[in-house]
Amino acid sequence: MDDATLAVASRGGVLHVTLNRPAQRNAMSLRMVDELRAVLADAEASGDVRAIVLRGAGGHFCAGADLQDMAQARQRELAGDSDAIAAVNARFGQLCGAFARTGLATIAVLEGTVMGGGLGLACVVDVALAGQGAQLRLPETSLGIVPAQIAAFLVERVGGSQARRLAVTGSRLDAAQALAIGLVHEVHEDGAALDAALAATLAQVLRCAPGAIAATKALMAQALHTPAADLIEDAARLFARAARGPEGVEGMTAFLQKRSPSWAPQ
Amino acid sequence: MDDATLAVASRGGVLHVTLNRPAQRNAMSLRMVDELRAVLADAEASGDVRAIVLRGAGGHFCAGADLQDMAQARQRELAGDSDAIAAVNARFGQLCGAFARTGLATIAVLEGTVMGGGLGLACVVDVALAGQGAQLRLPETSLGIVPAQIAAFLVERVGGSQARRLAVTGSRLDAAQALAIGLVHEVHEDGAALDAALAATLAQVLRCAPGAIAATKALMAQALHTPAADLIEDAARLFARAARGPEGVEGMTAFLQKRSPSWAPQ
Amino acid sequence: MDDATLAVASRGGVLHVTLNRPAQRNAMSLRMVDELRAVLADAEASGDVRAIVLRGAGGHFCAGADLQDMAQARQRELAGDSDAIAAVNARFGQLCGAFARTGLATIAVLEGTVMGGGLGLACVVDVALAGQGAQLRLPETSLGIVPAQIAAFLVERVGGSQARRLAVTGSRLDAAQALAIGLVHEVHEDGAALDAALAATLAQVLRCAPGAIAATKALMAQALHTPAADLIEDAARLFARAARGPEGVEGMTAFLQKRSPSWAPQ
Repeated sequence: MDDATLAVASRGGVLHVTLNRPAQRNAMSLRMVDELRAVLADAEASGDVRAIVLRGAGGHFCAGADLQDMAQARQRELAGDSDAIAAVNARFGQLCGAFARTGLATIAVLEGTVMGGGLGLACVVDVALAGQGAQLRLPETSLGIVPAQIAAFLVERVGGSQARRLAVTGSRLDAAQALAIGLVHEVHEDGAALDAALAATLAQVLRCAPGAIAATKALMAQALHTPAADLIEDAARLFARAARGPEGVEGMTAFLQKRSPSWAPQ
Repeated sequence: MDDATLAVASRGGVLHVTLNRPAQRNAMSLRMVDELRAVLADAEASGDVRAIVLRGAGGHFCAGADLQDMAQARQRELAGDSDAIAAVNARFGQLCGAFARTGLATIAVLEGTVMGGGLGLACVVDVALAGQGAQLRLPETSLGIVPAQIAAFLVERVGGSQARRLAVTGSRLDAAQALAIGLVHEVHEDGAALDAALAATLAQVLRCAPGAIAATKALMAQALHTPAADLIEDAARLFARAARGPEGVEGMTAFLQKRSPSWAPQ
Repeated sequence: MDDATLAVASRGGVLHVTLNRPAQRNAMSLRMVDELRAVLADAEASGDVRAIVLRGAGGHFCAGADLQDMAQARQRELAGDSDAIAAVNARFGQLCGAFARTGLATIAVLEGTVMGGGLGLACVVDVALAGQGAQLRLPETSLGIVPAQIAAFLVERVGGSQARRLAVTGSRLDAAQALAIGLVHEVHEDGAALDAALAATLAQVLRCAPGAIAATKALMAQALHTPAADLIEDAARLFARAARGPEGVEGMTAFLQKRSPSWAPQ
């Protein structure tokens, strides 16, 4: 199953999504934004997909927004549609929000250029694996614009202090620097090591129960903006629901029988 | 003073609390939860205790919840008590909340297995010292359940990005990896180095005024969910109260007289 | 242009502000607080200044509050002005808040002693560059008082976990330790390396558009206490405004013409 801007392959509960505009270093056109949202929505609805892997074709992850879309939005504004630019930008924000909120496990493999909107997408996955040669950058302020949809997700990833520093300096980070501030979670030497790390991460993810992953992600998102003490009662009800549910019962039974639970690859 | 599940010793203003079920790698039974809450409440009421040290007997910190309690709660639910599991879970959450809120200084010495609820407890102390061989893990999602009470405290300790990654992968961290993401604050080579680090930390803590520590901890907890600019007036009143109070007066006098303040070990 | 407690020089859009009480290790007197606020307000009003650099004269950044002001505030309280201490403290908090909120780029060069209020000021700039010999410390709790205005800004810089640890232990950090927890952003070996790093940072900052920097800083401050998904619409409007504005138009034009934009040093 291939879309115009994406190459998509499903194997063993994992949806491998490749940003596939290598001649444009996978610049994120509006079409790609819409296709990514559709792919995510389909995956969530399928019941089969447990993890989504995002990577880029041709050695780069993503060079950011496609300037063509912005130029066309400007034209539409000149023709009287005063919301055209904001609408384009909000669609990218909604894509990031949908990935940030999904209950599926999400992993990004970051190679080469990871810039602007590409960096935003890297910030909303659960696990960010980088190749040693990755170059991460927030170039917006140097272009006279604002990393508007990226800002909040970058703050969630690296905290306010590092996010602000990156925006004010527009500076380029290599993979080691990105690891040091928590912008990526692992760095690997070459493509083979990166593939091995992806396989290891997927194996870990698939040993975890999908419903439990989704519930924990939702709770942690709530904890970002709620004092921990205020969550105790909600958390207890959530725990009880999970423990009583089919995953909890199977998990406990498998544990006592010293076997793998049904959701784990056998 | 020994409880069934804890060994407790008080020396020079420090309460040393040892989780003491070594045959179960100090699994946190409901009884242990209740005894830890009682020990904390007594320490807060005593007026003598300034710091609490948590560690585990037999080379492990804590392997997480005791499955027996969960099995019994399931039985009670089958017998008609529909809240039994949530109630057990909430009691652990209240323990974590009580430690997170206490004005006393709290330190954990983390060796061997630090898992599930044990990891939650490690997240709510002020200073987490780890031995090089410590293994930290959030296994809940791999068992089909949710690290419900731990989630929010883990987010407070390592931020949302790392917390989510740990839950989605269920992965095991060694001490160096835990240090790299701020899950622990120091790592030491062996038991002797860990004891020396604990002694050094306690010496630092005891040179700080207990009332000032409590007030600062409360203010920082508030700052987690309040913009800094909104706290200026409250903070100024708090400062004035501390400066006018007995600790502030003694601290200033001792400073001008180039001597240790009364609260510091002489 | 020199004030009593500051040495101020403006060069190429950058205001270099030196805390200039070297005999007192640049202790932050009330007069210095007021002069720093005035310098910042003038810089914001000027339209010429794009970045502010803070550093200390004589090899130290700042040893914290001046005890003389506190002694005088105590005298005024004894004479019936029951708010004198809180008022002094709040003025420092408002200074920190003004720096935290400014749309100008801010950089601190941290050498020698960085203590108490000096550490607070280090926490509110966008980029903190430290010399290898810097010693950072929060001594308040060891003096029987509370780092009241610093607490919230320290939490914003290093997160609640590290902030609490520093307050509870009153411990001293060298530059490498400060870097490891994100309290500073870069460490450099000596004065020459620090000057070169400052020049490099300023060159990066000046390649970014001033309006875009200000808008991004404001958005990131909002994101600290607002879920990212709630900011999508606001962010889109902000993006459109920036893209349509003079900086966005010039930035896009310069990019297409493969030249530097007008705001970048030529």
